[in-house]
Amino acid sequence: VISSQAVSLTIDKGNYRHFMAKEIHEQPEVIGHTLSRYLDLSKMQTTFTNGTSIDFAPLDRLIISACGTAYYAGLVAKYWFERYARLPVDIDVASEFRYREMPIRKGDMALFISQSGETADTLAGLRYCKSQGIKVAAVVNVPESTIAREADLVFPTIAGREIGVASTKAFTCQLAVLASLAVHAGVQRGHVSADEAAALVRSLAEVPGTVNRALSLEAEVEALAQPLSRARDVLYLGRGTSFPLAMEGALKLKEISYIHAEGYPAGELKHGPIALIDEDVPVIVIAPFDQVFEKTVSNMEEVAARGGKVVLITDEKGAAACGAPTWRTVVVPDVPEFIAPIVFALPVQLLAYHTAVFMGTDVDQPRNLAKSVTVE
Amino acid sequence: VISSQAVSLTIDKGNYRHFMAKEIHEQPEVIGHTLSRYLDLSKMQTTFTNGTSIDFAPLDRLIISACGTAYYAGLVAKYWFERYARLPVDIDVASEFRYREMPIRKGDMALFISQSGETADTLAGLRYCKSQGIKVAAVVNVPESTIAREADLVFPTIAGREIGVASTKAFTCQLAVLASLAVHAGVQRGHVSADEAAALVRSLAEVPGTVNRALSLEAEVEALAQPLSRARDVLYLGRGTSFPLAMEGALKLKEISYIHAEGYPAGELKHGPIALIDEDVPVIVIAPFDQVFEKTVSNMEEVAARGGKVVLITDEKGAAACGAPTWRTVVVPDVPEFIAPIVFALPVQLLAYHTAVFMGTDVDQPRNLAKSVTVE
Repeated sequence: VISSQAVSLTIDKGNYRHFMAKEIHEQPEVIGHTLSRYLDLSKMQTTFTNGTSIDFAPLDRLIISACGTAYYAGLVAKYWFERYARLPVDIDVASEFRYREMPIRKGDMALFISQSGETADTLAGLRYCKSQGIKVAAVVNVPESTIAREADLVFPTIAGREIGVASTKAFTCQLAVLASLAVHAGVQRGHVSADEAAALVRSLAEVPGTVNRALSLEAEVEALAQPLSRARDVLYLGRGTSFPLAMEGALKLKEISYIHAEGYPAGELKHGPIALIDEDVPVIVIAPFDQVFEKTVSNMEEVAARGGKVVLITDEKGAAACGAPTWRTVVVPDVPEFIAPIVFALPVQLLAYHTAVFMGTDVDQPRNLAKSVTVE
Repeated sequence: VISSQAVSLTIDKGNYRHFMAKEIHEQPEVIGHTLSRYLDLSKMQTTFTNGTSIDFAPLDRLIISACGTAYYAGLVAKYWFERYARLPVDIDVASEFRYREMPIRKGDMALFISQSGETADTLAGLRYCKSQGIKVAAVVNVPESTIAREADLVFPTIAGREIGVASTKAFTCQLAVLASLAVHAGVQRGHVSADEAAALVRSLAEVPGTVNRALSLEAEVEALAQPLSRARDVLYLGRGTSFPLAMEGALKLKEISYIHAEGYPAGELKHGPIALIDEDVPVIVIAPFDQVFEKTVSNMEEVAARGGKVVLITDEKGAAACGAPTWRTVVVPDVPEFIAPIVFALPVQLLAYHTAVFMGTDVDQPRNLAKSVTVE
């Protein structure tokens, strides 16, 4: 029922100028739909039943593979699974994974992520893992897709139909499913207590409301579009779970504004990309106030010392604690560290969207790109 | 003895305009020195003795961590270890690895790669692994360095002192050590027969000579410097072991020419970066004639169809087989697939070097960069 409601909401642009804008704004609702499928809020537990029953306890390793934005969702999940469930994760883009003939063993399970469920390389990776005799799971948005049909276990995102070529709501819904799975794995593997699980589930339950509040940053983020549109090159930096978000932010800007944006783990800055920094290359830093915040601030100082302009996307605590000079700061509501990647996705998406709109590109149908890549 | 000879050769620029040029040209010799340490050519075997004795047979996983160029050497090695030794490799940049608190288990061994042996994040990762009670190995160029002292096992590269900030000979010597280790691991784990090992060792023994022949491409590569210097943005693409080489090529160009170059696995092109392609963004494709060659050619066709200019770096067989239109083609001597990443490093380094020289940047001391990053 939830699923078909979501679909019915997405057949036109409503009052929005682009499908992408509509899909960004649908996120509080569709993330809520998705979470309601995997969380039992009466017991503050994760719930994987009715065909989604999974046992992480006996696993030695989780293999994750995907393409593009879904790959970055998987990269966030690697941090979550390793931290909360102490489950080692091997992750690779599907176009490499499928040809690498990687060693697969009995204790492995594979997880594939795809909005369309038809991504050619991801499907090939899935088939390779099945041929190796291990269990194969999928996070997909289209339940009747090939990947959903061929996987042993399917965890649907309830994002509704996504029309904009640049994925937004599918990404945050993928994160919602993956976060729920990581908590579930942590409990099953004995690394997350019932109390800790309840706290994590409570954080996840806050996501739709917080994402809604993050949407109120839109005017502020829109004001960055004009100066950003003048940049030919942009760097995105982050550490920990903000590193994949930096990659996703760069991908989003690249896809729809054609600005050459590149994401980097902030700690690699000094090993090369800092050579690019001058006053013409804005640096977008994604840094919630977490355990690596101070390390990221020291990277911001290095950027500022070389004349670089820093756009800091942080939370209230981070804004208060940051001593480094910034050119602009976007302040997201304070949230528990666990859910920060989902909430911080919003300003990152809005920044790419408004920059592209300001530049006059075809936001929903950017040049050279297709919505789903069903051929190699 | 070999080691001190190499050092004595590197104290001045000799007849070269820059240390980087000198170090590029030293590669046939220093790769030879390095290989002579790990190969027994009388028996066509790898030889790890005298303090480098290592047993890969009982390992469940190899963890590799490093920064910058050394990280890309590790990424090539991941392909080698998984393919030839069927040993799963987890690889991460050291600045992420050290803070991720990844799960480490009894069957793991960790390998750290650093030219200087003083890289702060790499050292911290090494200490974390030691604290977890697993065996720790290192590939370093400075045998008296902190990382060399603290590792349980040290595999020196005999590259001699590297002065140019952009690493060249240290990278190919790291690859030489890692390739020898991968063959050794393959034999110990029973996935490479004595005959196969002899063939792989024979390929490695060809490297110094082939690298020397690759240096004769210099004038041809130099002719690309002028057109490339006009680009503000460049993409590097590769698949398999050519993917890390694409990353390394982009890093090299970024570091010394300040052109915004970005490396990508070629299969991810359609998931975003293809939106950047127009006639102003040259695309450097690294594609030896290997099992993924045809796949890479199809990505080149997509680039060409969108008006992009392809610079193809391939070998003789690849040049003959490639049906896609290219703007320029650089043809490296045919070599066995195993050693292609070492040989293909040469044109990639020469391209960055000559472009930077043409642009008049300070090649040996590029802005904002230090030779070794000994602070976080």
